[in-house]
Formats: sequence, structure tokens, C-alpha cells
Amino acid sequence: MEQMPNWLMQRAYMTPHREALRFEGRSWTFRELEQQASRFAKKMVACGITPHARVALLGYSTAEFVQVIYACMQLQLEMVMLNNRLSDEELQYQLEDSEATALLIDARFADRVTHANTWTFARIAQAEETDVTISTTWQKEATMTVMYTSGTTGFPKGVRQTVRNHEASALASALNLGVRPDDVWFCATPIFHISGFSTLTKSLLYGMTVDLYEKFDETEAALSIASGRATMISVVALTLSRILTVMEQRQLTAHPRFVTMLAGGGPIPRTFLERAQALNVPVAQTYGMTETASQTTTLQAEEAFTKLGSAGKPLFFNTVRIDGATKPGEEGEICIQGPHVTPGYIGRFADRSPLNNGWLHSGDIGYIDEDGYLFVVDRRADLIISGGENIYPAQIENVLHSHPAVVEAGVCGVADAQWGQVPAAFVVVKEQVSEEQLRAHCLQKLARYKVPKAFYIVEELPRNGANKLMRRKLIDLQKDSE
Amino acid sequence: MEQMPNWLMQRAYMTPHREALRFEGRSWTFRELEQQASRFAKKMVACGITPHARVALLGYSTAEFVQVIYACMQLQLEMVMLNNRLSDEELQYQLEDSEATALLIDARFADRVTHANTWTFARIAQAEETDVTISTTWQKEATMTVMYTSGTTGFPKGVRQTVRNHEASALASALNLGVRPDDVWFCATPIFHISGFSTLTKSLLYGMTVDLYEKFDETEAALSIASGRATMISVVALTLSRILTVMEQRQLTAHPRFVTMLAGGGPIPRTFLERAQALNVPVAQTYGMTETASQTTTLQAEEAFTKLGSAGKPLFFNTVRIDGATKPGEEGEICIQGPHVTPGYIGRFADRSPLNNGWLHSGDIGYIDEDGYLFVVDRRADLIISGGENIYPAQIENVLHSHPAVVEAGVCGVADAQWGQVPAAFVVVKEQVSEEQLRAHCLQKLARYKVPKAFYIVEELPRNGANKLMRRKLIDLQKDSE
Repeated sequence: MEQMPNWLMQRAYMTPHREALRFEGRSWTFRELEQQASRFAKKMVACGITPHARVALLGYSTAEFVQVIYACMQLQLEMVMLNNRLSDEELQYQLEDSEATALLIDARFADRVTHANTWTFARIAQAEETDVTISTTWQKEATMTVMYTSGTTGFPKGVRQTVRNHEASALASALNLGVRPDDVWFCATPIFHISGFSTLTKSLLYGMTVDLYEKFDETEAALSIASGRATMISVVALTLSRILTVMEQRQLTAHPRFVTMLAGGGPIPRTFLERAQALNVPVAQTYGMTETASQTTTLQAEEAFTKLGSAGKPLFFNTVRIDGATKPGEEGEICIQGPHVTPGYIGRFADRSPLNNGWLHSGDIGYIDEDGYLFVVDRRADLIISGGENIYPAQIENVLHSHPAVVEAGVCGVADAQWGQVPAAFVVVKEQVSEEQLRAHCLQKLARYKVPKAFYIVEELPRNGANKLMRRKLIDLQKDSE
Repeated sequence: MEQMPNWLMQRAYMTPHREALRFEGRSWTFRELEQQASRFAKKMVACGITPHARVALLGYSTAEFVQVIYACMQLQLEMVMLNNRLSDEELQYQLEDSEATALLIDARFADRVTHANTWTFARIAQAEETDVTISTTWQKEATMTVMYTSGTTGFPKGVRQTVRNHEASALASALNLGVRPDDVWFCATPIFHISGFSTLTKSLLYGMTVDLYEKFDETEAALSIASGRATMISVVALTLSRILTVMEQRQLTAHPRFVTMLAGGGPIPRTFLERAQALNVPVAQTYGMTETASQTTTLQAEEAFTKLGSAGKPLFFNTVRIDGATKPGEEGEICIQGPHVTPGYIGRFADRSPLNNGWLHSGDIGYIDEDGYLFVVDRRADLIISGGENIYPAQIENVLHSHPAVVEAGVCGVADAQWGQVPAAFVVVKEQVSEEQLRAHCLQKLARYKVPKAFYIVEELPRNGANKLMRRKLIDLQKDSE
């Protein structure tokens, strides 16, 4: 089994006095974080949490949460990163499916979910430290995190991300975007998502400062970019646009120290790219997913206009091919290979390999042009991306089907000026039901951002010859019913 | 077997139009180099060189040699990198020990060594291309290069450096010194040494430009540093001082784009560091060797004075310990672990593992201080470092022993203003022999830089109780005989 040094210890050893984390006006060095994490780990052991166990975490993006995550790393725990925007039912499903031995939560979530072995961060902090040896090495194949993704079936799958996956992802990104000892990543994406979490792994591997925010604030982001306090930031189209608006209003441009915005969640519209260019803000668009521990391909900022709509080329260790394509431009399923690809799932899908002949089949449809640039033309299972969050129609349809009045349901994304896309529902009913009743039903079972913004009662749903729902045709029903 | 993308192809795919190589006023992109290399590889196959074979290479640091090296990579050949400064006898030994199936040489060396299957670069270039499939993936455990190092016994050992070794070395350096897409490495160290060769591997992994020089020229180096044409350069104390002298004479300072000098071959004297600081030239001192595919530890430039004489801390993936030391400051053999450490040797030493319980025993003596900084106090086997070249006393002693007049011989390094150190020989003779005769004998069998600068005829050599030569006491005989 291949090993590598414990990242926290190695980083604290290499650059003890370098700034590691900023949060709400405070700042911590790598040595401070490592010492905090080791102490907190010893308290966790006092609370009965044993090294290598699987635990679920639920928190906001705070310095306290980072400390808990790093403490979990010190014990080499498998961290099930729960999305705090999920409904109580969704959370409960993931908790049970993951068979986490404990739930560690920010006290603000204490009433959201139940687990026989629940510990608030604050309660752990009050425990005595139990002596435990923190291993100086980590197994590269060990699972570091588990993140749930809904996939095509509607049943969320717990995706394993190993030490190797996170390492490969961070290293490939460094070779692509560059890395300098004085980099600072402005992190306002939730750290329970791979985008935010990968900022933490980059921090440890690069020796990079993370400037962490509990909530996204476009003014803070704009000022950081303009002042050079931040050198990198992850965005989606929505947050990018909001930052640019502030910069335009205040007549700010990017500081020369600012390196790039890393933009995920689908192509950035040309008008946004033009606005960014006018403010000297480079935008590198990327294609990634939970199963690939972040970026698989990234488009260099200077190619944003020449390859408009493209997600770029694979990072150094990665390979991408289009299933069945025999020449450039042919569409097919995007398949991915590389050390950043998950080895598999936990829970209900533990037996299901994500790989087919060594390739991850993404479920997304795309093509590679004659210059080798990837274009994603259709997200898997008609994925809806709303304000950077992935929404799977199948999950919402399942919830609608569970309503007694509903016979059939189909969900698709519709354009929205604020969120990019929002879900809309089309239902065939057997008895009268109001939009409000359907909405209330969904609110009970789904994260708020997944609740359809509109409900349409229709005669029948569009299906193909094999009787398969054609979600892309749902949008036509919207016009009919208006 | 773990695989990764073919570096040349992946780099040419990712950044085809980026400048890859500069040499004598010409310039090549990554795509051009990859295409050249593939064509040259096909010609090599026409000359009977088969993929995965072991070949020996003898050349100067030229664009042509880089093309040959990259062509060898395309065929996944094991490249035995011969040192062009060696004597004919030394070269012949390495050729035979390595059992290379072919010798590829710059025509200027055509009369230096003999091998039944010798091809000048120019002759291969005239061959027809034979169709061969260039593999798009590489095995990470495959041997990429073999470099001979003399070690303690006086018999040169062929050290294997795998794809993984070179990759790990380049990645760890990137995390330490940083890497940006517009980096340019001024390379005037020979590419048959790991220092120069690692510039090529960095180029492919980082997408970095190599500005290559056949001979070191301090004026070129100084102007490149001052103009920002180069951002990195590898030096030893000697070349560092020569560059600084030019910069001082011409009143040049380092351009803000210039990142650092990477200084190997032993600690840099304080006066040199002070001169560098005055010219804004950061100097990162490093401890590395052939067996570790370049750097193991590196001292940050900003710590040069606070940790004067130190070789710094391990790079991210590496671990260093002092054999037998129980507390900071205790001296012992420096032991090294990490993915950059050679898996072993070829030829006469193929059965000999370089590892002991998983650790490479460097043969060098050092200590780690209370802050974790490594200090190398004594190079293995009284290693002499002369102008950046390693010289092993045992090898020179073996040559002297082969002279009929010599009974006993001992060699040590003596300080030299120009080269840092030069070898001096102490011999006990049984019949009269002149210094000129001994020098002529050495010149026949040794690289010029290894030939002792002084020969002292003495009564007896200093030996310890076990009759082991105490080379460190030889220097006292010098005083006696003057």
C-alpha cells in the first residue's frame, strides 16, 4: 500500500509560520491549525470516535468546521460531507445509507437530523484530550471524504474520494493554473461540496492561504480581487456576474496579483466573459464533478473567446474520450480516466463500480473538437444546475410520484435570470390538486432549491417509443399550457 | 501497473503553441518538439532500436540532444546518460556495465568510445521513418534514465530513475518553488546530470520553457536574470559567484519576474548570499543526489541567513531522518524516503538494494536542528565537489593503485578559489616516480576534473586502529610536506 506524509503535519513542518486560514477577521498559521486539529482529534477520541471510522459532518463554512475537518484527517476518518441545504429527509437518508458511526454537527443544525451518536462541535471541544498517536503517514488509497450525488436514478450515491484522488486533483490543477507560495484562495463555496473542499486540500498541499466565508458576498469578493488580497476564487455563472456587477459599479479592476477565477457549473455566457475581460479578470472555465474530485478539464482564460462554450482540455494526468466517437465533433458520452477518478461508492451502491473497462462514464454528453477541446452539450440525466447546485430531475420526480394525486411526473430545467436554471414540474393527476399542495409536499422532502418553481398539470408526458420520458420535450408543454 | 499519459503527447495536446525550448537563437513549441521526437523515434526504429530497449546516450546540451532524448521517451527506452567529461576508460566501463543495446552519440564524440551498435544523431536523422505506434501511456514504474554515480566503492553504479521518480521530483519542486505557465528555466547545467535532466522533465510536466546552453556563460545568465527572460536557474557556488560578478560589474539587479536560483552541491558561503541579496537574487539551497532524482530538501531563499549552512526541509512527499539520532542536533547518516527515491541499480550492482528497511541510506552525515532543518556536515565517502561535479576519492585512489610505483594512495579535497574544492593525492611509493608521471597515468583513466591538482609523496598514510584510511587526516600531510 502506497503511503505519503500526513498532509497537515508535513505542511506545518515545511511552512509553520505561513498564513493558512482567514475567517471573520482572524487568521491562523499552518502550525496553529495542525496543533488545533491534533488537540481536537484527541478530544474526539475521548468522545468515542476511533481512528479510521466513518463519521458524518454537518456544518457551515467556518473556521470551526475547518478545524473539525482537519481533526478528522488527523484520525484518518472517512468524512461523509453532508450538504446543509438538503431537506431533513434527504439528510436522514444519507446518514443511514452511509452507516456513519457518529454525526458531528454545528450546534445550529442540532435539530435537523437524528443519529444515536451525535456530537456538536462545541461539545467535543469541552472534552478532555485522550492520548492517541497521530499517524505521520497516510495510505493513498484510503477514503478521505464521501460526498453524495444524486446521479440518474434519483437515489443519492455516496461517492468515495481517496487521499490519492484529492492529491491528484490538486497537483493537476497546480500544473495548469500555476501555484506560488503567496497564493490566497477566496473560498465562498460551501466546503461540503468538492469545489470548496478542494480549496482545503490545495491549501495543505500548496501551502496556500484560504480566505473563508460562511456566505458568498459579492462585495467582499470584488474588493479582494481588486486589492490583490485574493489570487484565486471559484465561481459559477451566477456568482461571477454578481462580482462583476460590484466591480463595474465601483469601477474596480483586478489587481495584477490576481491569477484567475475558476468557473464551474456549465459554460459562462459570452456577455459575462466580455465584462470580465473589460475588468482584467481572467476566467478559466472547468468541467468537473464529485466523482472526479473536482476539475477534469479546464479552459485557459485566454481561450475563452476562441473556444466559446468549451470546457477546455484535460489536466495533465487525465484523459477524456467520447464514447463511440470516431472523429472530432461527434457527440457521445464523456468518459474519463485518471488518478482523480473515484474508486467507487459506499452504502446502497457499494457493489456498483463507477468504471466500465477502466473508464468513468460521466453520463454527460459532449464532443471533442478538431483541436482537442471538450464541449459539454448535455448534462447527464438532464441535470439542472441552479446557482451552482446540481439538481437531478429524477429525485424531484420521485418525490412528486409519492403524492397520492400524482400519476406521472416529469421535471426539467427552465432558464432563470437569477439562478441560471430552476426546476419546473409537469404532472399528470388522477384527482384535483393545487400547485400549493404540490409545493408543500416537495418542501417537506426536498432541499428548498430543488422545489420546482412552477407546476404544470398536463394531459400526458412526452415519451419515446420505449416509453422513456423525454425530458427535453417537457419544455414544449410549458408553452402549450401558458 | 499504474500508468499515466505520455508526457510529450499530453503536453503537446494541452499547450501545443507554448514555447518549449530555446537554443542558440532558435525556438520550438511543445507541438514541434513532440512531432520532431515522434519522427526521430520512427527513424530510430528503422536503425533497429526497439521500444523499451536500453540505450546509452552521449552528447552535449544541444537542441539536437533534447530531440534525441524526447525520441527515446517516445519509444520508452531506458536512457543511460553518459557524462561527456569522463575519460574514455570510464565511459567504456559504463557502456559495458549497462549492457546498452546501442550507443547514440553526437558526432563530435564519435572516436571516444566503441560499441558494436553505434549511431551518430546525424546518421539516424538520415534514416527512413519506420511505422511504429507511439504509446499514449507510460508505465510509472518503468525506468526512464540511468545515471552512473561512483559511490563509496570506487566502482560506478548505474542508478535507475523511473517515470515516477522524475514525476515526484518535479511535482514536489513545483509545490515548493511554485510554478507559473510563463516560467522559463535557464539551463546551463549538463543534461546528462540529474540537475540538467530534471529541467527537461519539469518542462514537460509544467509546460515550462527551457532556455538551453551548451556551455555555461555567466554573462548570458546575468542578462537573462536581469531582463526577466529567465525565471529560474540551477547553480552551484562557483557559477553563482560568476553570475553575481557580472551583475555587479554591470550594475544589474534581478527582474521582478525572476523567481529563484536553485543552488546545489553544498552550502553557499555567506558572502555569496550577501552579494545575491544586494542584487535581489533569491537563492534556494538544495540537497539532492542522483539516487533521489534531484532535490530531497530545499532551503527557502528567505531563510538563507537565519539558517545559514542548512540544506532546508524535505519537499512535500519526502521524509528525512538521521540514522540513530534520538534528539535534534545529533549527527548521523542521512536517510531518505519518498516517491523520488530510486528503486535500484543496473549492471554489477543490480542485486544490491539501495534501501534498508525502506530508507535510502545516503552515506552523507548530517543532523536536523530543533526547527527541523537539515544540515549536511560531511559528504559521503569524503566526497569532493569541484565546480558542481561529484568526485569520489576511492575512484582516484584505485587508479593510483594501478600505477606500478605506487604502494598506497589516499585522496582528499582541498580548498580552491575557483572550483570550491579540487582533489589532492598522497602516495606511498616503492620506486621513484615523478608528479608528471602520476598525472599522465591519471589523465589516461580519469575525467580531467578528477585528476589531482597536486601529488604528495609521503612516508605513510594516516590509518585508524582498524587500518582504515582516514582521509580527513590527509590534509595534515600536506602541511608537513610543504
